[in-house]
Order: sequence, then structure tokens, then C-alpha cells
Amino acid sequence: MSLISIQLKEANLPDITRKLVETCAEYRTIQHLGPCPMPTHDVVVEILNDLAEVLYPGFGTRNNLHLGNITYFMGEILDRVFDKLAVQITLSLCHTNGCSPEDCANGCDLSQRSEVVRDGQDKAMAFLARLPEIRKVLETDVEATYAGDPACRSFAEAIFCYPGLKAITVYRIAHELHLLGVPLIPRMMTEWAHSRTGIDIHPGATIGPHFFIDHGTGVVIGETCEIGEWVKLYQGVTLGALSFPKDDSGQLVRGMKRHPTIQDHVVIYANATVLGGETVIGENSVVGSSVWVMKSVEPNTTVLMEKPKLIVR
Amino acid sequence: MSLISIQLKEANLPDITRKLVETCAEYRTIQHLGPCPMPTHDVVVEILNDLAEVLYPGFGTRNNLHLGNITYFMGEILDRVFDKLAVQITLSLCHTNGCSPEDCANGCDLSQRSEVVRDGQDKAMAFLARLPEIRKVLETDVEATYAGDPACRSFAEAIFCYPGLKAITVYRIAHELHLLGVPLIPRMMTEWAHSRTGIDIHPGATIGPHFFIDHGTGVVIGETCEIGEWVKLYQGVTLGALSFPKDDSGQLVRGMKRHPTIQDHVVIYANATVLGGETVIGENSVVGSSVWVMKSVEPNTTVLMEKPKLIVR
Amino acid sequence: MSLISIQLKEANLPDITRKLVETCAEYRTIQHLGPCPMPTHDVVVEILNDLAEVLYPGFGTRNNLHLGNITYFMGEILDRVFDKLAVQITLSLCHTNGCSPEDCANGCDLSQRSEVVRDGQDKAMAFLARLPEIRKVLETDVEATYAGDPACRSFAEAIFCYPGLKAITVYRIAHELHLLGVPLIPRMMTEWAHSRTGIDIHPGATIGPHFFIDHGTGVVIGETCEIGEWVKLYQGVTLGALSFPKDDSGQLVRGMKRHPTIQDHVVIYANATVLGGETVIGENSVVGSSVWVMKSVEPNTTVLMEKPKLIVR
Repeated sequence: MSLISIQLKEANLPDITRKLVETCAEYRTIQHLGPCPMPTHDVVVEILNDLAEVLYPGFGTRNNLHLGNITYFMGEILDRVFDKLAVQITLSLCHTNGCSPEDCANGCDLSQRSEVVRDGQDKAMAFLARLPEIRKVLETDVEATYAGDPACRSFAEAIFCYPGLKAITVYRIAHELHLLGVPLIPRMMTEWAHSRTGIDIHPGATIGPHFFIDHGTGVVIGETCEIGEWVKLYQGVTLGALSFPKDDSGQLVRGMKRHPTIQDHVVIYANATVLGGETVIGENSVVGSSVWVMKSVEPNTTVLMEKPKLIVR
Repeated sequence: MSLISIQLKEANLPDITRKLVETCAEYRTIQHLGPCPMPTHDVVVEILNDLAEVLYPGFGTRNNLHLGNITYFMGEILDRVFDKLAVQITLSLCHTNGCSPEDCANGCDLSQRSEVVRDGQDKAMAFLARLPEIRKVLETDVEATYAGDPACRSFAEAIFCYPGLKAITVYRIAHELHLLGVPLIPRMMTEWAHSRTGIDIHPGATIGPHFFIDHGTGVVIGETCEIGEWVKLYQGVTLGALSFPKDDSGQLVRGMKRHPTIQDHVVIYANATVLGGETVIGENSVVGSSVWVMKSVEPNTTVLMEKPKLIVR
Repeated sequence: MSLISIQLKEANLPDITRKLVETCAEYRTIQHLGPCPMPTHDVVVEILNDLAEVLYPGFGTRNNLHLGNITYFMGEILDRVFDKLAVQITLSLCHTNGCSPEDCANGCDLSQRSEVVRDGQDKAMAFLARLPEIRKVLETDVEATYAGDPACRSFAEAIFCYPGLKAITVYRIAHELHLLGVPLIPRMMTEWAHSRTGIDIHPGATIGPHFFIDHGTGVVIGETCEIGEWVKLYQGVTLGALSFPKDDSGQLVRGMKRHPTIQDHVVIYANATVLGGETVIGENSVVGSSVWVMKSVEPNTTVLMEKPKLIVR
């Protein structure tokens, strides 16, 4: 850099910095100042990567695992995940249920809040205790992935190459944390999966075993969906809300069932849209590609678009 | 590696390398040789990550910020961003407006081109001076995100977990650089956001405050769109071009308005498509899910698909 | 961490670890134990990044390349790519064609399997020998990208900013490996591109030169597609299967042509769906936005949706 840029900086940077800092006093929602930190996105991602090593051992960065060393390998990772997860849960509890930005700015001291710290540790341990069950259901998802796509040549291909399985893995982790009442972290996790797969599953959704999503880009599964077992979705499927009721003060009502129920053995083809909290797709039914459904479908039913009229010239 | 591979390399690598190098002389568009480097993708991403720390202080990697230390924190980042950005802008100006690949190959020396260097520095500083305004409008986007989704529980969730906000943040940065006449870098920025969010906003688009995109995968907002305030889009919405006029020589005409205008308080639901440079969606209108619009819609109008005929069996 | 968490760990981690390890004996498909490692996702990504430096020299991390030093630059990268690729191919061959999980657990020793190692090396070298041809066809893709979008201002913008080109580059690499009979690695590569671009191209598809995908999020190109030259696709286009025949035992039949043929100079607009292994879109035809095609279209034909009936109120 030449002398010119130093002069340019001297003339401009102090003023720009001052104005930027002033905005931190002026705007309330887009900064977090104070000694009590927010959860850290990068640590949440580290936790997910560590958990993947434990859930699919031998498919990650570590080789030569066998029954003689896997206890040390897993124990070491669980120990590390516990430490990171307990801190992140505590921070999310603190900010969501505990202190306001003003508290933080006035010196809220996390080390003084032993009950929140203890709660974070308990929830982290309760989550780890769920991992054997998570592995059990993930094995069914691996099976459903292999069974569901004629282009899939092996279980290893299912694990390495199917974004649907990646998104479901993160969802199943996040859903357990959601059930434990952990705020914020589950959504940070599923959004990381969304970013990598194009598949947006809300951690609040309930999804049975043997779940398969093929291709997956554009799939949206809303917060209050209930999905049975052996359900198969293709890219672009939306399981969404029909409308958002507002309360007397004009605010959106949060928390009611807004998203559909999909029963066992249903297949929903690419870009189909199923909307509404009272909509039920009955078991063994098929929803065709690009179909748009806003009311319930009986079991054992196939719903297709009427053959679209095309203009050919 | 065994001896075999050394023999294999000796027998093959020289010839393959020679043939590959020959292609660099033969093909003109897919290499850049010469002393004057191209902008660097990884540095552009570093700049975006640095700017996120400044725009949302306390939500990134740095904790324990407060009004007593934030000036140092911000000043240090701005200083660093200036250095990187000035170089990247200079390189993009140089290649876009200045020298051709042939110039570079013949020894174009950036250190001799002080006017381009100065222009890059001026544009970088002019951009930094816009940051307080960018923060101001981003606060409105955070508000619109929280207000727009009943599943969103806090402003922190809006900032951490909504890909729409991530894409809009990068767009607002890139748009300012675009207005300053910086080539290439703004598109590199929005494509990075596209890669992480599935939301493709061209830096040339004009977008008002309180903008919200939910889910977002598959959204495309074209170069010449004009979008008002309090507009809300869902996943898969395309604001695109209807056709591409060609000039007398058969080349596409570049630069005319090809994309729609969306007025204030419009909502466009999932997978709807709005096309054409003369199409205007009037204020307070609603475009339903999967609707396909190619001409203007009056203000205060709801446009829905006729209930599709389904074949049920 | 406080004392509490140490007690919590002592009381819980051993039991959780033991139960998790037990699942590794119980479930068969979601772990790989044994001395013979699986391919490594991160190394496959390193190979793709190295190849990008060779295919688009001067657009990556290395500056100041010229005809006097590019031989050393390319030779060094090819040498490194060979070493990594030969190992990854060997591992994928070993697991796909060679040993079962049980073999591995019982001590399959890769160093004893010289014929697989040699095969991996031969395939890696045969792949490198294809790189000049890959560069040749990628130059046509760069040209098609620039020619196809009026918003594209330069070849450099095409290379830096078009996810379609990124996905096609990875596809062309993966397709060569697929032709050489390499299992698993090609799919790992195209899924990495899918993750970064939202574009899912199966490495088994056959795609001619001058291929352009604009925006691209949600595009799916199935395993047995055949695509001619100068074909242009927009975001959300699916070239998919119509149905999956099952064999006598109820298993999906793998390997038959299930996806369409797209002839030269065809344009398929956003979110159109073309399905079926016997469907042929004839040359110079245009498939309109959101159109749904399940049977062949004659050459020189335009297929549009009948103007949809909208409800306006």
C-alpha cells in the first residue's frame, strides 16, 4: 500500500468508526454487547462434526477403528462434545429465558448463575444419553435411502453421498435438543444442514424411522409437521402452513399446529406442496409431482395433477 | 506408494503436463496468465466474514464487546477490510476496464498504474462510509424477519438462523459496491451467499427496507428488479426476465430493465414466478403459491391459482 | 467447567460410551470398522480444489503464472493429485468390489492387495491423461455461460460467479472417473458440487459441450440422461425418472435408462420437469417455465403451459 492510503485512512477511518459505533447505541436488535456471550455458530458446527464421527464411525476423518479401540475414540469425543455443548446450551438458555441485552450490558455474570450452568450441563448429558437411540433410527434412514433410489449402489454411497441423509442426521440431533427444551441451538443446527443441503427441516417436526429424501434441494418441512415411518420425499416438496392467524393485537400466533400430518408409507414426488395444520395424507398414499394439496387425502390414494394442457407450436 | 507408481509417473506425467500446458496457449478464456493477478475469491469471502463481525457485533467470533472496547474492535476490522478491499477492487477494475489478457501477459505492472490503485482505494473508503447506513437498513430486515415468521422466537434467532437475512446482508454490501461502479466483486459476493443459502440476488437489484425471505432455497431476484419496502418472499420465488432481446448482430442486449417491479407490502408465496421488465405488482397485493404472473397486478389484489384439478384414485 | 460437571461425567459418560459402542456391534450399515479405511471425503474435496487450479489457472489461489513457470506449477499439482487420487480410488475399489465389512474387521490388509493398488494407480493416471480434453470442453461451457446470460459481463465473471459452471466442472471430472469404472468417488464429487450450488448432476449422465445452467438451484439431472450440445437449463429443472420398475423379488431394478434425452440447442426454462427414459426433446425445441413433459417433443417445437387461470380478487 502506498502513502496515499495512509493519508486516506487518517482522514476517514476515525469518523467512519465513530459513526458505526454510534449505531450500536442507536439500534437495539442487531448487536449483542456485554460480558455474557451469545452462542457461537462455529462451535455449534464443531459439535455437529464431532457427532458425525460418533454416529457414523469410520466414515469420517478417523481410520482404523475396531472394537479394540472404538471405546477410547468414542469416549474422547463424547467428553469433548459434552464440554462444548454444555457451554452452548447454557449461553442459549441464559439469553432466551434469562437476561435481556440490558442485563448483559449492566454486567450479568454467567459465573454467578450456577443454576443455569447446571441446567446446561444436565441437558447436554441428557442429550448424549440419547445417542444410542439416535444411531438406531439413523440406521433405518440409511436402509430407506438405499432401498429408495435405484441409482444408489451401496450403504456407503448412502452415507457419503445423500444430502437427504445428512439433513435428517442433523434434524434427529436437533430434534432431541428441542425436546429437552434447548432454545436457539437446534435451529442453528438445522440451518447449517439447510445451508449444505438445501433441505430445511424445522427441529420441532416429528419424523418417524425409515425416512428418505431424494435430491432434496428446496424441501421445506415446517415446525409442526408430523411424519410417520417409511415416508419418501423428493426435491422441492413443501410441507407448509396455509395461513398465519393473528392475535387481537395483530401479532402472529406462535406455537399452534400449522403444518400437515403425513402418515406411514406415503410418497410425495418432486415440487409437490402440502399445506395446512389439519391436512392429513393417509397411509400408503402417493402425491404426484407438482401437485398442490390443501385438504386431507384418504389412505391408499394416488393424487395426480390433471394432465396439464400444453401449447405446442 | 510403491515403486510402481514412480515408474508410472516417469512414464506419463511429463507428457500429460506438456499437453495441459499447451492448452493454455490454445484456449483463451479459461486461464489468466501474467503478472497482474485476478481478484481472489478467498479474500472476497474473508472481507464478507469481517464485515459480518462489524454489522452484527457480538454475534460472531468475538465475545465480551461493550461500549468501552467496541471502537478498537471496529476500527481494527475496518482498517483490515480497507486494505483487502482496496486491493480486490483495484484488481477487478484493472481487469474489467483496463488491461486485456494480452496486456497482462506482456507485462502490465499494477504498481505502475497509480490511478487505478487510487481509484480502488477511493472506492473502498467510500464503501466503508456507507456501513452505518447499511446497519440501519439491516436492522429493519431483522425486524421484518422476526415479524414475518411465527416460528421465529427472538431477534437472535433471526440473526443466527435465517438464510434470507444472510443473503440480504450480503446483497446490501454488494449493492453498495455495485453503485460505486465496482465490477466483478459484487457478483462474487452474492454468489457466495447463493452458495450458502440457495438465494440468488443480483447486486444490481434495488430493494427497500424491511425485506424478508423465508426458507429461501431457489429464490432468484434478477439484475433489474425494483422492490419496495415490507416485501415478503417465500422459497422458490423467481423474479425473472420474460425474454432476452438480441441486437442486430444476434448478441443479447445487456443492461435494459428485464425484471419486475414489486411495490410496498407485497407478499409472494412459495414457488411463484413473476416475469418481465414491465410487470408491476401493486402495493399490498398477494401472489399465491405457484402462481405464474407475466403482466401487472393492481394494488390491493390477491392472485391465486385456480384450484387445480386433481386426479384422485 | 465447575466440579459439578466432572461428577456428572464420572456418573454418566462410561455408561453412555458403552451403550454407543454396543450399537456398533448391533447395527451393520452405519459404521466401518477395520484396518482398511473408507475413502475420505475431505481428501476428495482437496482433489477437486487442486484440479480447479489446473483447469482454470490464474483464477485460484496462485498468482503471477506465465508460460515460463506454468509447467512447474501444473506438474507439481498433477503429481500431488495423482498420489491422493490413486489412494482414494484404491480404497473405493477395495470396498465396492473387494472386501466386505467382515473382511475388513478380520484384517484385510490393503498393502497385500497389490492388484487393487495397481488398478487404482492406473485409473488415476488414465484420468489425468483426460485433463487436456476436459479443459477443451470446459472452454466451450465458459463460452456458453457468457453467451447465455445478458447479465454476464465477462468471461472472468462466468468463471468466478456462475454456479452452473462450477457444477458442470465437477460433473465433467466425475464423469471421466465414472467412465473409468471408479465407484463412489464420482458421486462424492458431484454431491460436493450439489452442496455448493444446489445443482445435482449424476456423474453417469452424458452431456455435450457448450452446456449452460443459469441460477441452477434445484436442478436435478438423472443418472441416465443424454444431453446434446448448446443445451441451456434454468433453475429448478428436473430431468428425472417416471417410475421405478421392480424385479421379481420386489427390489428396484438398477441400471436401465430411466431419464430423458435432450437433443442439441434445446432450452428448458425454470422449474420445468421432463420425465422418463423414452422421452426425447428434439433439437432446437423450447420447454417453457413450469411445463411438465412426460412424452417426446418434436424438433423445433415450443411447449408452453396453457395460460393458467388465475383467481384475482
